Amino acid sequence: MARFFIDTLPAAGECCVLTGENAEHARVLRLRPGESVTLCDGAGTDCLCTVKEGLTLLAGPALPCPAEPKTAVSLWLAFPKADKAEHVIQKATELGASELVLFPSRYCVSRPEGKALEKKLERWQKIARSAAEQSGRGMIPAVRAVDSFRAALQQAAEADLPILFYENEEQLCLREALGSLTGSPVEAVHVSLMTGAEGGFSGEEIAQAREAGLQICTLGPRILRCETAPLAGLTAVLYALEEMD
Amino acid sequence: MARFFIDTLPAAGECCVLTGENAEHARVLRLRPGESVTLCDGAGTDCLCTVKEGLTLLAGPALPCPAEPKTAVSLWLAFPKADKAEHVIQKATELGASELVLFPSRYCVSRPEGKALEKKLERWQKIARSAAEQSGRGMIPAVRAVDSFRAALQQAAEADLPILFYENEEQLCLREALGSLTGSPVEAVHVSLMTGAEGGFSGEEIAQAREAGLQICTLGPRILRCETAPLAGLTAVLYALEEMD
Repeated sequence: MARFFIDTLPAAGECCVLTGENAEHARVLRLRPGESVTLCDGAGTDCLCTVKEGLTLLAGPALPCPAEPKTAVSLWLAFPKADKAEHVIQKATELGASELVLFPSRYCVSRPEGKALEKKLERWQKIARSAAEQSGRGMIPAVRAVDSFRAALQQAAEADLPILFYENEEQLCLREALGSLTGSPVEAVHVSLMTGAEGGFSGEEIAQAREAGLQICTLGPRILRCETAPLAGLTAVLYALEEMD
Repeated sequence: MARFFIDTLPAAGECCVLTGENAEHARVLRLRPGESVTLCDGAGTDCLCTVKEGLTLLAGPALPCPAEPKTAVSLWLAFPKADKAEHVIQKATELGASELVLFPSRYCVSRPEGKALEKKLERWQKIARSAAEQSGRGMIPAVRAVDSFRAALQQAAEADLPILFYENEEQLCLREALGSLTGSPVEAVHVSLMTGAEGGFSGEEIAQAREAGLQICTLGPRILRCETAPLAGLTAVLYALEEMD
C-alpha cells in the first residue's frame, strides 16, 4: 500500500489533498478512486485513507504505526567514499535505524564541507524519506553531520549503550556489550553504533572513543567493508532486542 | 594482510610462486620482500607465508582459518534485477554465507539462461572469490543457479533448517524458527535461507514451499527490499548462532 509522510494527519472523516513531493509520488503511482493509502505523521502515527478522486483522500481512523521499533538505534558513520553513504542510509532506514550521523575521522578520504555537505545532506535526507515510505516506517530517520570526531564521540556517548565496531577488537563481542539489555523487556532504549570509513580507525581514535565511554566491540572474525559493518551491526542489534520478531 | 586462494598449500619451509589471477592481484598490491601474506586452500586451512622476492613466497605452518563459521548458511535468491545479485553475493560472502544459489520464480523480471547465465555465474563467482579474500574467509562460497523454483525448493529443503522469508508472514519469526538450534552448542549445522525477487512470491509458491518442508518466516514488521532481506536474514542467523562473537 502506498505511504506518504505529511506534517499533520487529517481527522477521521475529513478530506485531505496530497501536495508537493507527495503529489508527484502519487501521480507516478497512478492512484485510483477507492484505493487504500496510508498517511503517516512521521511521529509513529498512521492514518488509513481511501482515494476519493485524483489527489483527494478521505481519512479513516488514526492508528499507531506497527513497523516502528521501540529501540532507537543511531548509526554514526565516518564519511565513506562515493555513493556508499547513500547505500547505507537507504538500507539502514529499511532495517529500522532512528538516526544517521556522519562525521570526519583521521583516515576518511571523503570529507564534504560547507555547500557540498549541505547538498549531500539534502539528498541523503530524501533517500531516507523514500526508504521510510517503501519499508512502512512510522518516522523518517534524521540524517545529519557533525564536524569533528570529538563531537561525534561526545554525542554518540549520550546513548544508553554507545558501541564502536572495530575490526582489531578480539575480546568484547556484541552479545556481551548488549548484555543487560537482552532477555528482559526494556522500553525505549537508545543504542549508538559507530563504524569507520574505508581506512578504519587509528589506535588513538579508539583510545579516545573508549575514554568518551563507548564500548569497543567486534562484529566477528570476518573483516567487513565500511558499508557492510553498520548494517550488520544494526541488524544484529535489532534481532537481539527482538525488533525483528 | 593480503590473502590468496590456491589449490594446494605448500608444506612449511617450501617455496611457492603465485600464478594466474593471484599473480595479477599480487602485482596490484606491490608485495615487498619480508611482507607476510596468507595462502588459503579454500577448504578452511590457511598457510602464513613471507614474501621472498617478486611472486615467490616462503611457506610457514598450516593453521585452521579462524574466520570460517561452523554453521553453513546457503542463500537461495530469486533472480533479482540488474546488479543487485552482485551486491548480495559480495556482502553475503563477507558476512559468512557458505553458498549462493539463484533460481527463477513467478515474479522474476530477470531470468538469465544459457550463455548469458553462464557469463553471469562466472562473474558472480569472481566477485565471491574477491570478497572472500578481502574478508579473510577460509573458503569461497560456490555461486550456482538452478533452473526451476521446484528444484530450488527440493534442494533448499535438504538443509537441517530450511527457511523462506515472506513479507506477508505474520506468525512465525526467525527466533522461533531457529528454536532448537540456539542456546545449545551445535556442530556443523546447515541452514537454507530463501528470499524472493522484487515482486516477491505468489501465494501458490508459498504453499509449494511449505509443502516442500520450508518454514515460512517473517523478518519483522518493516518491508525489506529484495537485496536487503537475504543479508538481514543471514546476519540475524549468524548472530543468533554465535558466529559473530
